[in-house]
Amino acid sequence: MDLDLVFLGTSASAPTAARGTAATLLRRGGDRVLVDCGEGTQRQLLRSDIGLVDLEDVFLTHLHADHVLGLPGMLKTFALRGREAPVAVHGPRGTRGLLRALGVVVGNVPYELEVVELRPGDVVERGGYRIEAFAVIHGGGAIGYALREDGRPGRFDVEAADALGVPDGPARGALQRGEAVTLEGGRVVRPDEVVGLARLGRSVVLTGDTAPAKSVVEAADGADVLVHEATFLADERARARETEHSTAAEAALVAREAGVGLLALTHLSARYSVSEVAEEARALFPQTVVPRDFDLLEVPLPERGAPKLVARGGRRGPREDVGSAA
Amino acid sequence: MDLDLVFLGTSASAPTAARGTAATLLRRGGDRVLVDCGEGTQRQLLRSDIGLVDLEDVFLTHLHADHVLGLPGMLKTFALRGREAPVAVHGPRGTRGLLRALGVVVGNVPYELEVVELRPGDVVERGGYRIEAFAVIHGGGAIGYALREDGRPGRFDVEAADALGVPDGPARGALQRGEAVTLEGGRVVRPDEVVGLARLGRSVVLTGDTAPAKSVVEAADGADVLVHEATFLADERARARETEHSTAAEAALVAREAGVGLLALTHLSARYSVSEVAEEARALFPQTVVPRDFDLLEVPLPERGAPKLVARGGRRGPREDVGSAA
Repeated sequence: MDLDLVFLGTSASAPTAARGTAATLLRRGGDRVLVDCGEGTQRQLLRSDIGLVDLEDVFLTHLHADHVLGLPGMLKTFALRGREAPVAVHGPRGTRGLLRALGVVVGNVPYELEVVELRPGDVVERGGYRIEAFAVIHGGGAIGYALREDGRPGRFDVEAADALGVPDGPARGALQRGEAVTLEGGRVVRPDEVVGLARLGRSVVLTGDTAPAKSVVEAADGADVLVHEATFLADERARARETEHSTAAEAALVAREAGVGLLALTHLSARYSVSEVAEEARALFPQTVVPRDFDLLEVPLPERGAPKLVARGGRRGPREDVGSAA
Repeated sequence: MDLDLVFLGTSASAPTAARGTAATLLRRGGDRVLVDCGEGTQRQLLRSDIGLVDLEDVFLTHLHADHVLGLPGMLKTFALRGREAPVAVHGPRGTRGLLRALGVVVGNVPYELEVVELRPGDVVERGGYRIEAFAVIHGGGAIGYALREDGRPGRFDVEAADALGVPDGPARGALQRGEAVTLEGGRVVRPDEVVGLARLGRSVVLTGDTAPAKSVVEAADGADVLVHEATFLADERARARETEHSTAAEAALVAREAGVGLLALTHLSARYSVSEVAEEARALFPQTVVPRDFDLLEVPLPERGAPKLVARGGRRGPREDVGSAA
């Protein structure tokens, strides 16, 4: 089952020429989950490999302008296309009121628009994974999200099964499901003889905006990927405290304490270069990447390798050279 | 005095990978006037030569999502930058209510935000030009805008003045201002002996969304440039009628009837190619251009030449190749 993230907007507060405001797409199998939806997100999708797919799930970390202003336009475009599939917009307390206010612009939509307000600890179940809301520190009800896959059964040991004489077919399936099997000769094979220990599913944790927080360390404990904001560098630590944001160094310390596989820094200020941000974090946590818009972060099953950032992996190349008739 | 238009968003209803939603910047001397502000306009400005300048005047043609959704983000970004200069947002009836609804997201701003609701016939005076609202056909209070420069004095005929013996200096200035002058020898020179007929200022007319309309023909009468919407081609004429939009052919007929210098078609559907749109219009009105985003339309003084579209004239080239640290 493929699992990856496409960074659609990695800028803090306001867009830059190169970076859109906050939006990250999680893809797992055929599911598409958008976390935050800054202004221009629908167009970032159009400019990416993905296209403006009929997203079913949007999760807002908080209701600041740079995380939500792409929502009304996207909902409107879905309506213009005659979409019928429902959309669920999840977010902290206040999400319902926000959508009501934006309704002035969006108007009626031909699909069901479900609004789900979440509090830390709330869990949204999906097929094969769940999304958990956890507390962050960024004003009122801001929350982060952890995508956690269900655990996987242990690995089936084909050699052991062969040695015990378990025939191919239904008997092996039963063992994998945890059932004992009686062979033709009367020998009973227990599942633990041929199936290894159950394995944890993958997990990807996104903070949205936050000051460095214990609750993030807990939510990200052992996660494959932590996407943490890094609005400032250490020289602006005081300002980070005032505005409830993090420095790159602080994000790195959170990642280290949580023991995550990879830290991806986002919500970057235009003031800093990518290499400055990366350098500050890597001094404390070497497994850090600083994606730009359209970068793709693959999260393979652990036995297939480590999470890996593919530059421009979510973009099929320049798509703007459509001719004009002058 | 330079006068030009930068096309920041030329798509109809929803953005495409290559085109943003409605936004056109008028520049005259140091003035910057934004007509419509679709989602992503602030970023289009950042990606252009212009940058996100402190616009003083925004004019909304109507309040549909694809013409206004860039406004809250832009106003918010102005606030984040600590802008102090006032902004005036002009638009049809309902503009005040729209801004109140969007205020939920924008929050308080440190500058004066003036909202001016306009009706057809209303005129906003600026230094050296005015902006007139005129009626269009696109639901409720939708309006178009005509930028009309003040008339210019006639051309000063240096040879005639020399022949009459008018000395250089204050006497020539007085004649240009329309005052008669008595020469040393007692001869009275009347202004009409050395100054030609007063000349019309330039005019640029933008329809916003509209069905073909007599009121547009009147507003665009003799205009240097008419920016007219062309959401459909002739094959979708029935649909254009239902939705109160125009076909490219209809826009061309309006331009021909108004006798404009140049027709620029915008608000294009992603269904059609630029060349199809241009071809349909040019069969009826050859002086038609179909700008793409970031194209620049120069409107020189008539004695200096005809209006001219400069492909990508508003764009300093690819600005997205900012490195990532992967």
